[in-house]
Amino acid sequence: MRGNMNFAVVRFILGWVLQFEAAFFLLPALVGAIYREPREALVYLAAALISLLCGFLVKLKKPAQRDIYTREGFATVALSWLVMSIFGAVPFVLTGEIPHFIDALFETVSGFTTTGASILSDVEALSHASLFWRSFTHWVGGMGVFVFIMAILPLMGGGTTMNLMRAESPGPSVGKLVPRVKDTAKILYQLYIGITVAGTVVFLACGLNLFDALTTIFGTVGTGGFGTYNDSIVSFSPLLQNMITLFMFLSGINYTVYFCLLRRQFKEAFSIEEVRCYFFIVLGSAALIVWNIHKLYPTLGEAVRHAFFQVVSIITTTGFSTADFDAWPQLSRTILVLLMFVGACAGSTGGGFKISRVLILLKTVRKELTIMIHPRMVKKIKVDGHTLPHEVLRATNVFLAVYIVILSASVLLISLDNLGFTTNLTAVAATLNNIGPGLELVGPTRNFSLFSPFSKCVLIFDMLAGRLELFPMLILLLPSCWKKY
Amino acid sequence: MRGNMNFAVVRFILGWVLQFEAAFFLLPALVGAIYREPREALVYLAAALISLLCGFLVKLKKPAQRDIYTREGFATVALSWLVMSIFGAVPFVLTGEIPHFIDALFETVSGFTTTGASILSDVEALSHASLFWRSFTHWVGGMGVFVFIMAILPLMGGGTTMNLMRAESPGPSVGKLVPRVKDTAKILYQLYIGITVAGTVVFLACGLNLFDALTTIFGTVGTGGFGTYNDSIVSFSPLLQNMITLFMFLSGINYTVYFCLLRRQFKEAFSIEEVRCYFFIVLGSAALIVWNIHKLYPTLGEAVRHAFFQVVSIITTTGFSTADFDAWPQLSRTILVLLMFVGACAGSTGGGFKISRVLILLKTVRKELTIMIHPRMVKKIKVDGHTLPHEVLRATNVFLAVYIVILSASVLLISLDNLGFTTNLTAVAATLNNIGPGLELVGPTRNFSLFSPFSKCVLIFDMLAGRLELFPMLILLLPSCWKKY
Repeated sequence: MRGNMNFAVVRFILGWVLQFEAAFFLLPALVGAIYREPREALVYLAAALISLLCGFLVKLKKPAQRDIYTREGFATVALSWLVMSIFGAVPFVLTGEIPHFIDALFETVSGFTTTGASILSDVEALSHASLFWRSFTHWVGGMGVFVFIMAILPLMGGGTTMNLMRAESPGPSVGKLVPRVKDTAKILYQLYIGITVAGTVVFLACGLNLFDALTTIFGTVGTGGFGTYNDSIVSFSPLLQNMITLFMFLSGINYTVYFCLLRRQFKEAFSIEEVRCYFFIVLGSAALIVWNIHKLYPTLGEAVRHAFFQVVSIITTTGFSTADFDAWPQLSRTILVLLMFVGACAGSTGGGFKISRVLILLKTVRKELTIMIHPRMVKKIKVDGHTLPHEVLRATNVFLAVYIVILSASVLLISLDNLGFTTNLTAVAATLNNIGPGLELVGPTRNFSLFSPFSKCVLIFDMLAGRLELFPMLILLLPSCWKKY
Repeated sequence: MRGNMNFAVVRFILGWVLQFEAAFFLLPALVGAIYREPREALVYLAAALISLLCGFLVKLKKPAQRDIYTREGFATVALSWLVMSIFGAVPFVLTGEIPHFIDALFETVSGFTTTGASILSDVEALSHASLFWRSFTHWVGGMGVFVFIMAILPLMGGGTTMNLMRAESPGPSVGKLVPRVKDTAKILYQLYIGITVAGTVVFLACGLNLFDALTTIFGTVGTGGFGTYNDSIVSFSPLLQNMITLFMFLSGINYTVYFCLLRRQFKEAFSIEEVRCYFFIVLGSAALIVWNIHKLYPTLGEAVRHAFFQVVSIITTTGFSTADFDAWPQLSRTILVLLMFVGACAGSTGGGFKISRVLILLKTVRKELTIMIHPRMVKKIKVDGHTLPHEVLRATNVFLAVYIVILSASVLLISLDNLGFTTNLTAVAATLNNIGPGLELVGPTRNFSLFSPFSKCVLIFDMLAGRLELFPMLILLLPSCWKKY
């Protein structure tokens, strides 16, 4: 029995997911009704009914065995994101707003993975219902990331969730932790909803209407980046842009900080190395970019605003833009490309390689160099004062190797479209790290429609792989995962 | 005592190196005399005398202690390559052929590291003496690589030399190996000289004069890539180009194969995984490129010739070109960029990440995926039938991390020159992997003269770091390496 994948339980959970999605579809239907878009409202209502029905049918037969191992967990999350995206793409096709299914799927995967890469050149042509649904997928995706962090990441050698877990339990005993996972998840969702509400209120106070405030905060807390205007958020007021910078920044922080703050553990909150590193990188990068671009803008204040916005937008893997950073000098562009790969803190909704992993790799390098100079020195790699277990180091190294394999293979595959190297590399970086815009032909003023359907499929895979920390999607590709013994 | 760097012994070895270089300078002096270039001949003679004198002065005081540990070994190789390059650059400045010292240093470092990146737009304007010296630095550098592999690499966690060592000694006892290192080195040099002589004879038979045959084989066996014509070797006959492809290919193979062949261990020679992988990558890449470019050339044969030539030239990190591959379609360009990073076999004069390391990383990834699907399976990573020790895996992972750090930092630093991203990335790739040409502004028909002196220094560092497997150069940068306790 143990040798086979437990398909029944995977199927059963997917049924649940579809029924959840049915509920989500009701919101754009409501928006359509409010904005007098009867056709779109009906389409989203129909989508809700179809999802509900499919979910019901799939769930009819209860699984005999409820065992979930790593393999089942990985298959479940990968298929959940995929199934949600396939169903979520249907309304775009049915309303005729995105006629080709691959395009609609690209847009929806981009939404649920909180990437924000778009194939649309004219977003403003969409109905309010579809614009709302598009942004709402970011919010749902961000929520999904927390489910993923709580339920699946611990199966992958931990590493990145370590901080979160430690905040929850003072001792190193795993046994103690397990009954608390549900409580932790609950607090995470409350925090996520809390930040969403706070952001909505702030954006309303800055002059946005409710629709814009909601869609903008969905793209912000989910670190997604879909906008509802063709120029992203260039036309928003400077104050509003700064507020968005603030909320993006807050959304890229490891949520452990908020845990600690809630429990009044202020010292712990400010001593988390990953978060301090995040502050430092943001400040340093923005300062360098200000120095590099200040001559392009009439005032220093404007340069500072754009620099901070773009740095925070890229490092948190949100992808909103207030300026065409593809037109900035090469130093600034290179900093942004490097930040694309660094990504946000682990334990946030942000994507990318994650600052904690970068930190671990840099500490490994430092340790090796020190040992070479002082061979008798005994040195352990510590994060936040605790020695990292061998398992975490191994997981980080393997992650890097897999990351490079997927990156190289993707750049090679999409090069069949014969676009430039920078375009291809940053397109893959922007999707694999769940950011959105890249440079050159996929820069902030462009979109991903120029790629062939095949390349779009590669990039869809990258968005999903990046969101799910690579392994779940890779395992789906292995025939031995599906084999019966 | 143990805590301090043993400067005396480092200094003493550098003295030896300078005296060797003095002897090397006599060859271009001779070439100058033959081609009636009295000025250049005198300059190289003067350089020989200066080197000899400096070497003599430096060696005057014998070191009290002859202990060499990792730190001293690393400092010695890094400084040897640097000092040889600094002295080697002097004649270019004195003859006025490369008036700026940084440019002359770039050219010489590029020579000794067997990179082949040039800042010259008109090589044909050089004297025969200087052309000879330029190509001869490749040959000396290639020889130096074997010294490095034998003496220094074992200090770095081994890994890459494993094969070579295993061919020499049947047992796992390190004690047994040590007295044999000198014999191994001797056989390596004989092989290197043997291939050089064979290549010279073949090239002469294909119609080259002795000067061209020698300079070409120096660039080939050293996997360097400096040519003596402005169009690299585009104007050479197809037969000659194919012969160069063959000798580049032979030079990129792990020399263990030749060891085994010499000892009539044919089965062992053909069962080395790294070498089989090398064959497979070359064949596969060339086939894809032929498919991609065949319409650009009048006959299929021509496409095949160019594809194989460029693939072998890049993967062996030689860098000769018979065609402007920067004008090829994006798929071919991307394959070549990926090959730039892969590099040649360990245990050859080629650079790059090395196929054995790529193989180890891919096997690590496969192992992790298998464990995720079949958690009860016990799987060890094996190469050539032997389980890899943990130490080798760790060294490979650390190497990758250091590699990425240097790559990112270099791309960032040279972006100050405000050139394009593809230019910057491939310029760093072409120097860090000791190849020569990159894409766009550093493509095969261009050169590196457009970079600022600062960027040239960064690229000089990259060439040295790449040649010396990263760590020796990094350690030179650490203040704690030089501190007295």
